[in-house]
Amino acid sequence: MAKQEALRTSECPVARTLESIGERWCLMIIREAFDDVRRFSEFQKNLGLAKNILAARLKHLVEIGVFDVCPASDGSAYKEYILTERGRSVFPILVAMRQWGERYMFEKGEIHSVLLDKENGEPLPVLEVCSSQGARLEPADCYRQRVVAGVRGEE
Amino acid sequence: MAKQEALRTSECPVARTLESIGERWCLMIIREAFDDVRRFSEFQKNLGLAKNILAARLKHLVEIGVFDVCPASDGSAYKEYILTERGRSVFPILVAMRQWGERYMFEKGEIHSVLLDKENGEPLPVLEVCSSQGARLEPADCYRQRVVAGVRGEE
Repeated sequence: MAKQEALRTSECPVARTLESIGERWCLMIIREAFDDVRRFSEFQKNLGLAKNILAARLKHLVEIGVFDVCPASDGSAYKEYILTERGRSVFPILVAMRQWGERYMFEKGEIHSVLLDKENGEPLPVLEVCSSQGARLEPADCYRQRVVAGVRGEE
Repeated sequence: MAKQEALRTSECPVARTLESIGERWCLMIIREAFDDVRRFSEFQKNLGLAKNILAARLKHLVEIGVFDVCPASDGSAYKEYILTERGRSVFPILVAMRQWGERYMFEKGEIHSVLLDKENGEPLPVLEVCSSQGARLEPADCYRQRVVAGVRGEE
């Protein structure tokens, strides 16, 4: 618990992201939402999660602003969980995870899904960390600086 | 346990990545390694993790090929944990997490770190999912297809 508190108040944005949405079922729920899943029963069916765990995760994701809860678009009594802008902005994280998994987590001959561009049917290019000039950056090409949120700061 | 097995054998690369490196301390350990942390005692000091948990996570990360264990570069008796290519390839995942955290997880006035390009001192551009023509893609611009690993397949 103390450790999670340390992540939540860390100056490191990676730590805060992990603390808020890093739990694996949270990310799987968001992945489902990108496939246009919106209802509790659909999340439950697709993920096979216990209802109490799914309910807790969805509640958390609504509290931190990843989902809005809305009346069902078909006028029925169901609620729908709709990704907010904050939720939709998780897309690059999931694509980066997907591409790492595609590259390293399957033996030759195993079946996996790939994400293709509707426009041309091509697989999405691999996400790369690049400079503003487009040069590919390795971790050693970067350094960290402390800044004040909302204002560009000094070390 | 059954749920974790379901992730490990999933056709979805996101699920497999979450199962293999998605545990938050695994990703924090890899983050430390990008800052050139290599020794057990340094990981322990920086993360404040219990030794048994850290040892278990490092063992797992060695087993799945994220770290190689090497004799210390200074000739001492210490072991060093060195990121493999597979480990270094986690960089875009961590940068995407960092950028999401920078954007949404800090109140104005809070201090956080940013990653800058050594070449020009500028913050790294935000990672975006783009088509091969460079157009920014939203989740709705993409679709999934099943393929056989190592061979481009059909739905």
